[in-house]
Order: sequence, then C-alpha cells, then structure tokens
Amino acid sequence: MTSPRTGPGRPRDPEADEAILRAAVELLIERGVERTSIEQIARRAGVAKVTVYRRWSSKEKLFAHALESMHEQVRAVDEVGGPLLDVIEELLPRWGELLADPGARALTARMIGAGPDHPELLSTYWRHHLEPRRERARKTLARAKRDGVLPATTDVDMVIDLMWGAVLHQLVLAPGDRSATELTAYLRRMLRQVGFALPG
Amino acid sequence: MTSPRTGPGRPRDPEADEAILRAAVELLIERGVERTSIEQIARRAGVAKVTVYRRWSSKEKLFAHALESMHEQVRAVDEVGGPLLDVIEELLPRWGELLADPGARALTARMIGAGPDHPELLSTYWRHHLEPRRERARKTLARAKRDGVLPATTDVDMVIDLMWGAVLHQLVLAPGDRSATELTAYLRRMLRQVGFALPG
Repeated sequence: MTSPRTGPGRPRDPEADEAILRAAVELLIERGVERTSIEQIARRAGVAKVTVYRRWSSKEKLFAHALESMHEQVRAVDEVGGPLLDVIEELLPRWGELLADPGARALTARMIGAGPDHPELLSTYWRHHLEPRRERARKTLARAKRDGVLPATTDVDMVIDLMWGAVLHQLVLAPGDRSATELTAYLRRMLRQVGFALPG
Repeated sequence: MTSPRTGPGRPRDPEADEAILRAAVELLIERGVERTSIEQIARRAGVAKVTVYRRWSSKEKLFAHALESMHEQVRAVDEVGGPLLDVIEELLPRWGELLADPGARALTARMIGAGPDHPELLSTYWRHHLEPRRERARKTLARAKRDGVLPATTDVDMVIDLMWGAVLHQLVLAPGDRSATELTAYLRRMLRQVGFALPG
C-alpha cells in the first residue's frame, strides 16, 4: 500500500466520511467481511481509494467504526410515558418491524460469522451496540419488578439473555422469513413466558 | 472443472469418504465456508481432488453431507433412568463440557455466518442437527410438566427457543471464553429461571 496515511485525525470531508461509513455497512450486510474490500467500499461511496485509506488503515477498523456510527432506531421504554405494560404494548409492533428488516437479520448473522476470524469486530459490535441496549433492558426489567408486572424473584440478567437469545434464534438460525406481525406476536408470547403480566 | 463425475452414487472407498467428511468439518470450523476449497479438503484428507469431485459436485453439497454425518455426542435425557431432576443434574456437567468446546462454538458461528450467502447449508444444519434435538427437548419438557418439575402452564416451544437462544447468545455473541464449570453453572441458573424446580 502506497497511500499516504494521516492516522485517525480530523476528517478532511465529513460528507465523504459519512458516505464511506454507509457504504461499509451496506456491503457488510450484502457481502460480509471476507468478500468486501476497501476498493469496493470506495467505489460504492464514490470516493478514491486513497480517501478511505487516509482515514482507516484496514477494513476491520473501518467496519468497526461503521458499526459504532449506526444510530439507535427505536425509542427507549423510558422515553415513552405511562404504565410499563402500556408502553410495552405501544412499542411491541415497532420492535417487530425492526426485527423483520432483512438487513438487521443479515448484519447480525455476518457479525456472528465474523467472530471466529475477527473477534475484535464482534467485540466492537457488542460494546457499542449490544451492551448499551443491555444496560437499558436492565433498567426496564428492574422497573418491571418494582411495578409488579414481573415476578420479584426474576433473575434480570438471565432473562435478558433468554429474550435476546430467543430473538437471535428466530433471526439467524430458524429457517424462513418472519413478517413484522409474526414477530410482534412472537415477542408478546416471549414476554409472557418470561413472566410479564401481559394479556395474551 | 474437468474432473469426471459419477454423481452421488455408491462410495468407491468408505475410508476415503470418511476422511473427506472429517476434513470438511475441520476446515469448516477453522476457516469457514468462503475460505475453504475442495482442493484444501482433498489435501487435508490425503486424497486426490478428483476423488472428492467423484462424490460431491460442490463444496456446499460436501459441507451439507459432512454436517449430516456428525454424530450425536450426548446421551438423551430419556436414555438415562431415574427422576427427571436427577437425570438433569447428572447431564448438566456434560452439557457444560460440550458447550465449552471451541470447535462447537466456531462451527455454530460459521453456520450462522453462512446463512445470508448459503441458506441451504444453514437449513441442512437446522434439519439434521437442530430439529431432531428440538424434538427430543419437546418430549423432555412435556415430561417435566407431567412430573410437576416445570409449571403446567409452560409454553414448551417458547421455552426451547429461550433456552437455546440464551446458550447461543453465550456461545457466539457474548465476548470471552467460558469454562465448562462456568457454563454448567449458567445452564443451572437458566433452567431455574425458565421454571425448573432445581436447587440453586
């Protein structure tokens, strides 16, 4: 590689940066880590290869940054007012919609698949995407226990693993696609089984 | 490809076949689907490339067969006599050991990662590996309900998703390795949370 590198300093062109990060996420979803090159990302973003290398010295670093830059798409339970069960009822269809997105499904499968060869990518995904959501889920479940809509004996961290795991299982392992409506019904059934006092 | 092909007829050499299937699983764990070629599998198995092509026309078909040929490694709950909770106590450390195997972990991650590009491989894995285990789990959970060690209101299929999902989450998503002892303790905590009347 003969491209000049100036390290991860201040971006020369925020718009180019944004296009590069967006192209990286798109290609990650479409093709995965192994079959995506810096060259392809540059082409998709409409910039020169050197523009990419000026900011990121490897595709792993670029992917990690692209994952960090993805935005939160659902409102947190705490941002919606009202009794917890009402808030959950309101958010359930939105969660179902998000999970039905084939991009979310492919990205999750790609991240897990990258684990054996690129553990640092998986741990970036965990740290920047999953751990903050986990922390929010902890607070919501603690509130559910206080509000009496979840049994007081609930093992909060285990219930988070169980719920995320069931969703993961549906998304990346069980064959066939699921519609937003099916996933919403699934989530409701799941919440009831882990102890939420939700109507059927 | 100019190799002669005789289709998936009777194997010429069962020993060569076995070596090929074993090499395929090893390379699948080590390198994944994309970065493994028929040539590498032949070399690892110590056979000529043509020997592989005589039996399997693509690496996807070979991988699918290799997955089908993997043997069941744990005794089913039903094969162990005695009250269900005692059987579970006996099997828990063995389950923990199996899950702590880095090969099992990598294989699962590779299969999930192959999903977006090779859905037929993932569905073979589901059909031949996961669905039979799922059927066994259904019977065990039904028995647990009858024996009164699991609440009668339990949604059996959902509890299977929750439990497998939590394990999946630990194996392929959560960062860091887990020892057999840690995984055994985790499984016990998980069984208790889903409603099994196990001691703590």
